[in-house]
Amino acid sequence: MAARNNFMLDESRVPKAWYNINADMPVAREPVLHPGTMKPVTPDFLSVMFPMSILQQEMSAERWVEIPEPVREAYRLWRPTPLIRAVRLEKALDTPAHIYFKYEGVSPVGSHKPNTAVAQVFFNKEAGSKALVTETGAGQWGSAMAMACAFYDMPCEIFMVKCSFDQKPYRRMIIENYGATVYSSPTVRTYAGRAERERNPDSDGVLGLAISEAMETVATSGGLKKYAPGSCLNYVLMHQTVIGIEALEQMEMAGEYPDMVIGCAGGGSSFGGIAYPFVHRNLTQGKKTRIIAVEPASCPSMTKGRYAFDYADLACSGPIVKMHTLGHSFIPPGIHAGGMRYHGMAPSVSALVHNGDIEARAVGELETFAAAVQFARTQGIIPAPESAHAIRVAIDEALECKRRGEKKVIVFNLTGHGHFDMEAYDDYHNGRIHETELSDTDLQAALAQLPLVPSE
Amino acid sequence: MAARNNFMLDESRVPKAWYNINADMPVAREPVLHPGTMKPVTPDFLSVMFPMSILQQEMSAERWVEIPEPVREAYRLWRPTPLIRAVRLEKALDTPAHIYFKYEGVSPVGSHKPNTAVAQVFFNKEAGSKALVTETGAGQWGSAMAMACAFYDMPCEIFMVKCSFDQKPYRRMIIENYGATVYSSPTVRTYAGRAERERNPDSDGVLGLAISEAMETVATSGGLKKYAPGSCLNYVLMHQTVIGIEALEQMEMAGEYPDMVIGCAGGGSSFGGIAYPFVHRNLTQGKKTRIIAVEPASCPSMTKGRYAFDYADLACSGPIVKMHTLGHSFIPPGIHAGGMRYHGMAPSVSALVHNGDIEARAVGELETFAAAVQFARTQGIIPAPESAHAIRVAIDEALECKRRGEKKVIVFNLTGHGHFDMEAYDDYHNGRIHETELSDTDLQAALAQLPLVPSE
Repeated sequence: MAARNNFMLDESRVPKAWYNINADMPVAREPVLHPGTMKPVTPDFLSVMFPMSILQQEMSAERWVEIPEPVREAYRLWRPTPLIRAVRLEKALDTPAHIYFKYEGVSPVGSHKPNTAVAQVFFNKEAGSKALVTETGAGQWGSAMAMACAFYDMPCEIFMVKCSFDQKPYRRMIIENYGATVYSSPTVRTYAGRAERERNPDSDGVLGLAISEAMETVATSGGLKKYAPGSCLNYVLMHQTVIGIEALEQMEMAGEYPDMVIGCAGGGSSFGGIAYPFVHRNLTQGKKTRIIAVEPASCPSMTKGRYAFDYADLACSGPIVKMHTLGHSFIPPGIHAGGMRYHGMAPSVSALVHNGDIEARAVGELETFAAAVQFARTQGIIPAPESAHAIRVAIDEALECKRRGEKKVIVFNLTGHGHFDMEAYDDYHNGRIHETELSDTDLQAALAQLPLVPSE
Repeated sequence: MAARNNFMLDESRVPKAWYNINADMPVAREPVLHPGTMKPVTPDFLSVMFPMSILQQEMSAERWVEIPEPVREAYRLWRPTPLIRAVRLEKALDTPAHIYFKYEGVSPVGSHKPNTAVAQVFFNKEAGSKALVTETGAGQWGSAMAMACAFYDMPCEIFMVKCSFDQKPYRRMIIENYGATVYSSPTVRTYAGRAERERNPDSDGVLGLAISEAMETVATSGGLKKYAPGSCLNYVLMHQTVIGIEALEQMEMAGEYPDMVIGCAGGGSSFGGIAYPFVHRNLTQGKKTRIIAVEPASCPSMTKGRYAFDYADLACSGPIVKMHTLGHSFIPPGIHAGGMRYHGMAPSVSALVHNGDIEARAVGELETFAAAVQFARTQGIIPAPESAHAIRVAIDEALECKRRGEKKVIVFNLTGHGHFDMEAYDDYHNGRIHETELSDTDLQAALAQLPLVPSE
């Protein structure tokens, strides 16, 4: 019989608990600051946005948080996801390395995002929230939320950045097909939106403004509506750890343990999802897996940003957190990996990078697409441009193994398929992608907003 | 522990042999006729288009045809595919029926088409073919062929109908991303293409002409290039039987046997793929599963066409086969399920419908989209419009079970996801889809071309 390359778990193996990195953080946790007072927030401030059950998860230091059975039932619609050994890619690279990837693109919306969407909608439904409000850039998060809200019969409003709304109609159509309501942001529905439209009648919108519109909608709903974020918060990363927990079990089936775990990191949620269960083993069981977070060279929060307190949103109305940041008003170049154009990074990922538990690496856009095309032509799957950042580093490391004659075991996270991103590939093949690495001048200008907290 | 709903097979369970319905056909096989002489073709005529190994498969009467290990290796990139019990849909319908679906949308291109594409490219590679040529309408077949050719390092040329080339650029981009060459048909590369462009400089193209361009390219290549069809031929349906063979094993895991197996039928390949292993049990083991082929009311070859000898292509240059047909120059209305706009039906499916072994049913476009939306909002997966035809009938049968209080077991084939078809859903939600059932006048006009063979 042929060697096994596709490690499938039975549906009974959908994890029963999420892993909470807070239990094992090697450094003290930094407080979340109020944007007005610059002092640590009270639960009151956050409870406008989130139900108490979710705030408790956010603050929890329990290592394992039980996944409610109705959430596991929803997970079973597409989980456990496959872990596949990329034998054809290995052959094409002629490397002694073993390359495995965890494939989250099998979810109904084609990405990892539903892992937290179904959980957030479930907890909100249980808590009596009457509607959920969120924002979406390219639309991956919006489509996951729309699907999850359809599952729980929960009204859903989504502020979609106008340029995506106009240019990426397929994602808007998916959201509407699940029954959610999409607004092209800036809207006339909110103070923030109207102000922007007055200032700039031709505004294309930005994610930061869409966040402000979503938060304002929640804050003025008299407690009926709640907010659902797609990344960055501790509990969002925790929901995503089903990825890494399954991958650990699947690597056991494969009879190998990874020397490297690689994930792309935009806000950090898919990265934390695959990486934290392996970080856990590093921190508590003496394992020495290299954990590598990959970001675009054009938005290099971890590799060139500052580890400092900064606003999570552009409008400066949300909480202030300590993280790797390029400055809250930093607007990255228009790269195709829309999910990686965030000025900051999840606080827990940032703290671990700062403490040396996680490596960070930045890669260029052209070399990333080259890796994506090589992957598609060998393994079949066309990766989302975000996911391709992890593939680039996996290939680089496999080629390094070849140079050194080392048989390392590499695992990377393939967070989604690229069926909605074919224009990006078309641009790549037709020479319309130009490297957009950040200039030092731009970087220094962006970082000049920091520090917010003078003592830093 | 919760009841099992997702039946996953280990990669070792990828079938080792295809099932060949020819071994069990309850009626004598009709000959294939030469378009010039109207007499049965010689192997010479067909060997211009296909390598001998494939012609042998086409003519074979062996019941089980071994799948070469390299093809199984490629299958294992996405197979076995899941069989899932649609518990949420059952609940929404409040039906005592058990509804299962086999999900082919997990393949890298999102449909069942690679099941035969990788096999055809493998056999052509083995036979020394220097390039493969085919046509594609909406692009599902073209993208599967492009991927398979990338796997085997086989040059690939695809004639894509101009209106799709212009209006569905994502599929064209996928094909190019795998390294294949796409032409917008009609081209100036072939006699057939030039003739059409002279006749009609603004021609949008049609599938029949794209087929003619592909066949002419092969016929004038001096034996270097071969042709690869996406449906209708016996061996293509045979390659697709991996779907039904896996489903049989998965239904055993579920501890049930289907009372009904339902599939959409355009050319008939995915339908034959899911249905024939169950037809085999009906014919040889006394099982009595109802086998239902679903077609669109606007292109009703099985329910309103004639069982007669007809040309397989519009240009009348290809072979003549006995099948259910609306007449070879029939142009169906522009429904969104592009894969179901063929004037004929696979000869083996036609013979079994004619003989009463398979039921045929036609459904309207609006009721089909209603079923697709209900499925997406309960099970998450957005179906391809083609697949939604099977969902419509599965839901209708489940509601019939509710009326009668019967617990039937229903299995349907979900041939692909609809991520490339979101405009169709947008049209549906915005009232831009209008029922396009065929008028009797149009139907009679189309059928007036028949019979070709006076004795019929």
